[in-house]
Amino acid sequence: MERCALGLVGWGTVGGGVVSILARDGALLAERTGIDLRVKTIVTRTPSRVRAQRPDGAAIGDRLEAILDDPEIRVVVLLVGGTGEAKAICERLIRARKQVVTANKALIAVHGDELFALAAQHGVGIAFEAAVAGGIPVIAALRDGLVANRIESICAILNGTCNFILTKMEVESRDYRDALAEAQRLGYAEADPTLDVDGTDTAHKLAILARIAFNRSVPLTSVRVEGIQGVSARDIASARTMGCRIKLLAVAKSRPEGIELRVAPTLVPLDHPLASVMWNHNGVHVVGNATGPQLFTGQGAGAEPTASAVLADVVDVASGRYQATTAHYRFFQPASAPAFLPETEEVTSSYARFLVPDRPGVLAGIINSLAHHGASVLSIHQGAADPQGQTSIEVTTHPMRGGAFLAAVSEVDRRGLTLSPTTCYRRL
Amino acid sequence: MERCALGLVGWGTVGGGVVSILARDGALLAERTGIDLRVKTIVTRTPSRVRAQRPDGAAIGDRLEAILDDPEIRVVVLLVGGTGEAKAICERLIRARKQVVTANKALIAVHGDELFALAAQHGVGIAFEAAVAGGIPVIAALRDGLVANRIESICAILNGTCNFILTKMEVESRDYRDALAEAQRLGYAEADPTLDVDGTDTAHKLAILARIAFNRSVPLTSVRVEGIQGVSARDIASARTMGCRIKLLAVAKSRPEGIELRVAPTLVPLDHPLASVMWNHNGVHVVGNATGPQLFTGQGAGAEPTASAVLADVVDVASGRYQATTAHYRFFQPASAPAFLPETEEVTSSYARFLVPDRPGVLAGIINSLAHHGASVLSIHQGAADPQGQTSIEVTTHPMRGGAFLAAVSEVDRRGLTLSPTTCYRRL
Repeated sequence: MERCALGLVGWGTVGGGVVSILARDGALLAERTGIDLRVKTIVTRTPSRVRAQRPDGAAIGDRLEAILDDPEIRVVVLLVGGTGEAKAICERLIRARKQVVTANKALIAVHGDELFALAAQHGVGIAFEAAVAGGIPVIAALRDGLVANRIESICAILNGTCNFILTKMEVESRDYRDALAEAQRLGYAEADPTLDVDGTDTAHKLAILARIAFNRSVPLTSVRVEGIQGVSARDIASARTMGCRIKLLAVAKSRPEGIELRVAPTLVPLDHPLASVMWNHNGVHVVGNATGPQLFTGQGAGAEPTASAVLADVVDVASGRYQATTAHYRFFQPASAPAFLPETEEVTSSYARFLVPDRPGVLAGIINSLAHHGASVLSIHQGAADPQGQTSIEVTTHPMRGGAFLAAVSEVDRRGLTLSPTTCYRRL
Repeated sequence: MERCALGLVGWGTVGGGVVSILARDGALLAERTGIDLRVKTIVTRTPSRVRAQRPDGAAIGDRLEAILDDPEIRVVVLLVGGTGEAKAICERLIRARKQVVTANKALIAVHGDELFALAAQHGVGIAFEAAVAGGIPVIAALRDGLVANRIESICAILNGTCNFILTKMEVESRDYRDALAEAQRLGYAEADPTLDVDGTDTAHKLAILARIAFNRSVPLTSVRVEGIQGVSARDIASARTMGCRIKLLAVAKSRPEGIELRVAPTLVPLDHPLASVMWNHNGVHVVGNATGPQLFTGQGAGAEPTASAVLADVVDVASGRYQATTAHYRFFQPASAPAFLPETEEVTSSYARFLVPDRPGVLAGIINSLAHHGASVLSIHQGAADPQGQTSIEVTTHPMRGGAFLAAVSEVDRRGLTLSPTTCYRRL
C-alpha cells in the first residue's frame, strides 16, 4: 500500500467534507485505489475552527511553509476562495512542485491560463473536478469520456442557489425576495448572495466547461452574463403558459460562425430534460457529434458532494494518472480558434412580453415589426384586458439572430405600441 | 506526437463507427491527446465487408496473427460478440501482451474474473467502457469519479431495444408484438431479439456495473432476471393510473443484509428521473453515500455513441492512464463480501392486480391476506365491473419483503378470491 500525505489549505465546508469522508470510508478508498490517503497538515487562518474535526495525527497551523517545506506532502487540496490570496498560494504551491487539487472555480476561470502554464513549467498538475457541478464528474466526462467528440453544445444549470430560488418561486408562487430569504434561511444562499444571483458563479463554471469542450482559453469577458434578480413571479407564470420553466442557463454553443457563450435566465420547454432539474440540483446537457445528447445531474454543491470530487481528483493525481492526462491533454489553442459571438449574433428562439393598450391594430403592429426584422413567429398569446384596458401580448419566435430580435422589440417600443419596457427572454 | 497503431478484431457497426470518427475527427483527437491513432490492421472473418470503409493504409485480413505478431500494435479493439470465440481471441491477445479495449458485455460479465486475472498476470489492461450504456461514460464515473463513495444503489435502463418497445407501447397504445415489429423495422431490435427482450443483455450490463460499484466478482446467477415479453398493454395502462410507467429496470442495491440484484419490468413513478428516459435512450441513476443521487442519460447503443466510448478507452490505454488505474483500482473481494439476496429477501414497494368477481367481501378478503403477511398498503384502485361481473383490484404496497408479498398474493389466489393468476410488479 502506497501512502499519500495530503496538505489542506483553507478550512470550510468542503474541507470538513474531505475529512469526514476519509474518517468514514478511508479504508475502503485505500482498498480500492491502493493508496492510503492521510491528511497530514491543515493550514488555515483560523486554526481554532478546525479543532472539532481534526483528523488523527494531523497538524494544524497558519503558516503555508508547513506544507511547502514538507517533502512528504506531494498533493495539496487548495480550498481558499476568491482570486487574490488563492492565486498567490496556488503559485507558491506550484513553485514548490506540489500537485494542486482545487474546488475554486473563480481561480481557474480567471487565472487558469497563467496557472496552467506555470504548472506545466514546474511539471505538476492542477485538478479541478470539484470546481464545476460539485460531485458530478462532468469535467472528466468532457475531457476523457467524450474526448473523441466535437462538442456541439453545452446547456447547463450550474448554480444550486439560483435553481433553488427559481424552483421555489414557481412551485410555491413566491416572489424573488421571498424565495431568496428562504434560500438564505436554509443555507442554500449566502448572506451576500450577489455572486450567485448575478450569474458570476455560473459564468465562471461555464468558462471552465467551455475551455475543456473547445480546447481554448476562455476569457470571462467573452461570456454574456445576466442574473436572476429581475425574474418576476409574473415571468414565471407567463413561462408556464408557454409550456416552459425559467432556469438560469449556462449555454456554450459551437456554430460555424463562432462560439456563443452566455449565462441568462432562459425559458426551458417542459419536455427538455433540463426542465426536470429542480431545487438545488445541477444538470449538464452536452451534445457531442458522436454521442448525441447526454445529461448529467446531481448535487452541485455541499460538503460531501464537493469533497467526493476533490477526493476523486486526489486519487487521480496521487496515482499519477492525472499527470498522464494533462501531459497528453493539451489546452491547445488552435491556430484558427473560432471567435466568440456577441449577443447580436446569437441564434435562439426568443420570447417577448409586450404590455399594451387593449385596442385594435396593436397586435398587427407588433407582428409587422417582428416580420420586418425577419422573425418567424412560433406562438402568440394575448391575455384578457384588465379594468384599466391594458393587456399583454406574448410572442415566441423560431430561432433567429439576437440582433434582429432586439431590433424588432425596440422598434415596437419606439413606435409607441407599448405601455412599459418589454420583457425579453431567450428560449432553449 | 506519439503514434499508436491500432488493431481491430471483428467488423460490424461499432468498428464502422470507430473508423468514421477517426476519419472525420482524428486530427482533433490527436491534437487533444498528443496521440496519433491509426487503424493499422483489421482482422475479420469477412474481409470483403470492410472494403467500402477501409481506412487509408489499413491492412485487412482474416488471420489474428497479423495483429498478434505485429509489435507495433500495442492496443487492440475487440469487437467480436458472444462469449466463445471472443474469449479465445481475448486470451490470445492478452498472452501476446496487447492492451484490449472491448464493447463486448457478455464477455466481461461472463468471463471477467478469468480475463482480468490473466490480464494482470501479463501486465496488460482490459478496458470496457463501451460495454455498458454506449457513449455514456458511466464506467469511468463509477470507478473514478465516485471512487470516494460507497454506492448505495444503481437503478438503470440499460437496453435501448426494450425501452423503445415499452415507450412505443405506452405512447402509441400498441401491444407488445406490434411494438417489437416496429423496433425491428427501424433497426432498434434484431431479427432474433431474445437476448434483449428476455433481460439477458441488461443482466450482463448490471453485473458489470455491480462489479465496479461493490468491488467484487458478480456471477450472473446472482442476478434475478425477468424480461418484458409478458408486459401487456393493460399493464402499461394500469401503471399509468397508478402514476407510473413500466421500465425494464436493472437494480443493484446495497442493504445491511446483502446486495439485491435484479432485472425486471418495474413501475417507475412519473416524478422519478428515470421515468423521463424514453425511446432508445439509456439512463443510469446512482446513489453514492457522499454525492447523493446522480443521473446519467444518453444513447446507449449505435455505431458512433459506442465508438466514442471505445476511443475514450483507447486514449486511456494508449496514454498509460488506464494501466495506472487498473494497477491501483483492484477488483478486490473483501474478506467478508456481502451476500447476494434472493427474491424473497428483496425489499421493494410492490404492485398486484387481482382479477375478481364484483361481489361484497372480495376487497376485504384481499386486504386481510395482505395484512396477514405484513403488507402496508400505499394505494388501492378498484375498476368498474364489466358486463360479466368481473373487475380488477390494484394494490400498491409500501416497501416490504418480496417473500411476504408473494406469499400474500398466493394466499389470495389460493383462497379462490381471484378469477385468474394475479399480475405482479415491483415498484421503484
